[in-house]
Amino acid sequence: MYRVDLNSDLAESFGNYKIGLDEEVIKYVTSANIACGWHAGDPLVMEKTVQMAKNQGVRIGAHPGYLDLMGFGRRNMAVTPQEVKAYIKYQVGALMAFTKAKGEKIQHVKPHGAMYNMAAKDKDLAMAIAEGIYEVDQDIILMGLANSEIIKAGKTFGLKVCNEVFADRAYNSDGTLVSRKLEGAVIHDADLAISRVVRMVKEGKVTAINGEDIEIKAQSICVHGDNPEAVEFVRKIRLKLEEEGIQVTAISNFIL
Amino acid sequence: MYRVDLNSDLAESFGNYKIGLDEEVIKYVTSANIACGWHAGDPLVMEKTVQMAKNQGVRIGAHPGYLDLMGFGRRNMAVTPQEVKAYIKYQVGALMAFTKAKGEKIQHVKPHGAMYNMAAKDKDLAMAIAEGIYEVDQDIILMGLANSEIIKAGKTFGLKVCNEVFADRAYNSDGTLVSRKLEGAVIHDADLAISRVVRMVKEGKVTAINGEDIEIKAQSICVHGDNPEAVEFVRKIRLKLEEEGIQVTAISNFIL
Amino acid sequence: MYRVDLNSDLAESFGNYKIGLDEEVIKYVTSANIACGWHAGDPLVMEKTVQMAKNQGVRIGAHPGYLDLMGFGRRNMAVTPQEVKAYIKYQVGALMAFTKAKGEKIQHVKPHGAMYNMAAKDKDLAMAIAEGIYEVDQDIILMGLANSEIIKAGKTFGLKVCNEVFADRAYNSDGTLVSRKLEGAVIHDADLAISRVVRMVKEGKVTAINGEDIEIKAQSICVHGDNPEAVEFVRKIRLKLEEEGIQVTAISNFIL
Amino acid sequence: MYRVDLNSDLAESFGNYKIGLDEEVIKYVTSANIACGWHAGDPLVMEKTVQMAKNQGVRIGAHPGYLDLMGFGRRNMAVTPQEVKAYIKYQVGALMAFTKAKGEKIQHVKPHGAMYNMAAKDKDLAMAIAEGIYEVDQDIILMGLANSEIIKAGKTFGLKVCNEVFADRAYNSDGTLVSRKLEGAVIHDADLAISRVVRMVKEGKVTAINGEDIEIKAQSICVHGDNPEAVEFVRKIRLKLEEEGIQVTAISNFIL
Repeated sequence: MYRVDLNSDLAESFGNYKIGLDEEVIKYVTSANIACGWHAGDPLVMEKTVQMAKNQGVRIGAHPGYLDLMGFGRRNMAVTPQEVKAYIKYQVGALMAFTKAKGEKIQHVKPHGAMYNMAAKDKDLAMAIAEGIYEVDQDIILMGLANSEIIKAGKTFGLKVCNEVFADRAYNSDGTLVSRKLEGAVIHDADLAISRVVRMVKEGKVTAINGEDIEIKAQSICVHGDNPEAVEFVRKIRLKLEEEGIQVTAISNFIL
Repeated sequence: MYRVDLNSDLAESFGNYKIGLDEEVIKYVTSANIACGWHAGDPLVMEKTVQMAKNQGVRIGAHPGYLDLMGFGRRNMAVTPQEVKAYIKYQVGALMAFTKAKGEKIQHVKPHGAMYNMAAKDKDLAMAIAEGIYEVDQDIILMGLANSEIIKAGKTFGLKVCNEVFADRAYNSDGTLVSRKLEGAVIHDADLAISRVVRMVKEGKVTAINGEDIEIKAQSICVHGDNPEAVEFVRKIRLKLEEEGIQVTAISNFIL
Repeated sequence: MYRVDLNSDLAESFGNYKIGLDEEVIKYVTSANIACGWHAGDPLVMEKTVQMAKNQGVRIGAHPGYLDLMGFGRRNMAVTPQEVKAYIKYQVGALMAFTKAKGEKIQHVKPHGAMYNMAAKDKDLAMAIAEGIYEVDQDIILMGLANSEIIKAGKTFGLKVCNEVFADRAYNSDGTLVSRKLEGAVIHDADLAISRVVRMVKEGKVTAINGEDIEIKAQSICVHGDNPEAVEFVRKIRLKLEEEGIQVTAISNFIL
Repeated sequence: MYRVDLNSDLAESFGNYKIGLDEEVIKYVTSANIACGWHAGDPLVMEKTVQMAKNQGVRIGAHPGYLDLMGFGRRNMAVTPQEVKAYIKYQVGALMAFTKAKGEKIQHVKPHGAMYNMAAKDKDLAMAIAEGIYEVDQDIILMGLANSEIIKAGKTFGLKVCNEVFADRAYNSDGTLVSRKLEGAVIHDADLAISRVVRMVKEGKVTAINGEDIEIKAQSICVHGDNPEAVEFVRKIRLKLEEEGIQVTAISNFIL
């Protein structure tokens, strides 16, 4: 049987600032990545979102990022592995207080933005992130770009890992994402995007930007809740996946 | 047998900024209050200090404060009880990641600076702090100003509580601290300060600023490691307490 | 001839976070209060908003606040007069770089949120704010709650001052605003709100919450651009003021 | 006649955190680089340091950096040229409020840490910094690594520029600094360091790490005040320069 997880970045609001239709998109996803107050999010938002995820039966993950609220954690920073390891622990711990208070557990950790992208390529950084998680809780699943350095690092520490794919992004033939700066990087046709992820899940393949078929492991699909169109896309992708006989369920139900 | 704890605020350095002779003062205390990155401290400092406390056999506590690094958490802020409760959880959780990683546990939580002072008087704030701790871990001891609202709030939630006293501060006849703005608020004579705490521990009494003897429960004594003189005072107070037959030991050894 | 200014808080967006329909509301106001990066706003937003105000012929003011982005500068903080004076200078200077770069000048300074409210009542704080402005540029107009301590402080330093009124708020008989916590504090009837400000401008009077008529000096009216309804209200209030023969123009055109 | 400026990074303290023997080192330098609150410094420290520089007859410069207090502005960040331009303006403006209040002017701008190093090599970033300064005040001198991209960028905008050299650092044969990660990067022999800067000033030459003599323009020498030894070195270097007939004076006295 085919199974896949749908994950979305939630809890990105901060103080008086609201971002994301969290209440809407959470109805369709199975795993929630919760910002931990560094690149986005604050303690009240974290608390509220943990409760919302619990109410919806959605599994909870930490979404740690760089301390760069002004840049939303999307700007590369030259942090050392030792620093990033401590930053991961700090943020995962902060979320853990809120999950513990609600009788929940942290299912996974998915680094955010620039940290995610850097950890997909930089082995030392990836190892530091994996080690940070490993030291806090060895049962946490490490989610990152399919087949990248972060996945390898997680395995090295004996962590369960989750290969994440993107419905709306083009892939290079080596399995990396096509840079957003290049034409064709983003797939705007919703039906095409959906048929691609269905194929990723069922066949383990996707057509790269050069036309070549490449192998890809799709355990979780990243979706967005920034605006009504995005939420509608999530609703459709979930529906289509289920129509195709793919069970949409949290990663902890099939990554063992 | 008389027993008392010596606690000190540690891990207040931040990035390139160093504060406190942590490596020195930790030799003499039994409980360490670790700043959690809001009013002071950062993840690397927290990690290092947790390790140092473990090495020295010193018990670890969280020292949460307001998000006011520029004011070192010493400026009153009009936060709501709901906010402070979430802030406590966030900071306690962040520290918990580091203690968990070292196989240690958080012994206590002692609010810092303005939060400490406000919680000593404001019942709603005190209750919110106690509830935040209670929700994260019911085994944590809540440390605060002896006989103040924070102690009552901890008891209301069934938490173990620790009455803290100050060696170098004068008391009003109602058990509150004499404001630093008033003459005589700080006791500069080290021998007098020490003899006062010995009496607090042995007799449960201290002479208030108006000359009256008042009752005070001394379970932990707050000491400082800001400079060599402060550290020397800590060394002396510990020696004197032991000479007086008072066992200096972490609160978790006698607050049950 | 009757004249009044319409002012609105702009440039409150921060990084990836958007707040306010600045492009809409700026069409109807005559003075823009620009957040300076402490409670809201960032350098890119400041730069863009200064340009937008210049394009629209709207005069520019600094809107300094407390360093509390998480609380949007709305939480009282126990800062000293010396601190607030330095904070005012820092933020006014930061904005001055952007106005200078565009060949514009800072017309006014209006403290934000908690700083605004505290300065309306606390003479020492009000004097510190006025002194900070005075030291940076004696031609800047100080805007604050009509007839409050901040207006008196501005006059003491020989600054030009602007008495601000609120269209949608009830007043106590002493000229202070009715606390938002009390019933009737906010006037939801747009027509009533408008007729009240027309009377404030023409007669210098408003009916206080106890039914009594009180004197009030209305030199600028605070309006909001948070949502389409708010913007529509601003459009209406401007139209109505002009129908009533009141010239809507920036304070620097009539406060000399 | 030979002339050179001695500059030092001051005002790096923050809130309760103290860094640098500013009161000592300021006696020997001719230009002070004042941190502007992003990577270090706060408004009170800026105000105090501007006054101190004025009292000592030391000229004032802005020392803007990345918004990374935790990393002291020493970590590379992938900011865009548009962002860095706005950040420069914000920080220069903030300092300008304090200099204006004391009847002083900003003599120069020297980017800090990672921004300094990135701007020495990255033309787009260098141009953005120069443009930001140009837009705020065309009389400000742009100080940066001798003969690097930042110097070229300043000239492109018609700004006066100041070539800075380091007494205690080894140079590559292309005029760049030897990375601190490599052996021999830092010159620990004070007499050697001093004789090198004397030669840089008098002959315009320095021996690179490969033994080759290279040309270098030395208009300002960077010195430090972190500890008593550093201050003593500054005292000695100033004395030696004067003994060698080199006038030690602020850059605005000879860069026209």
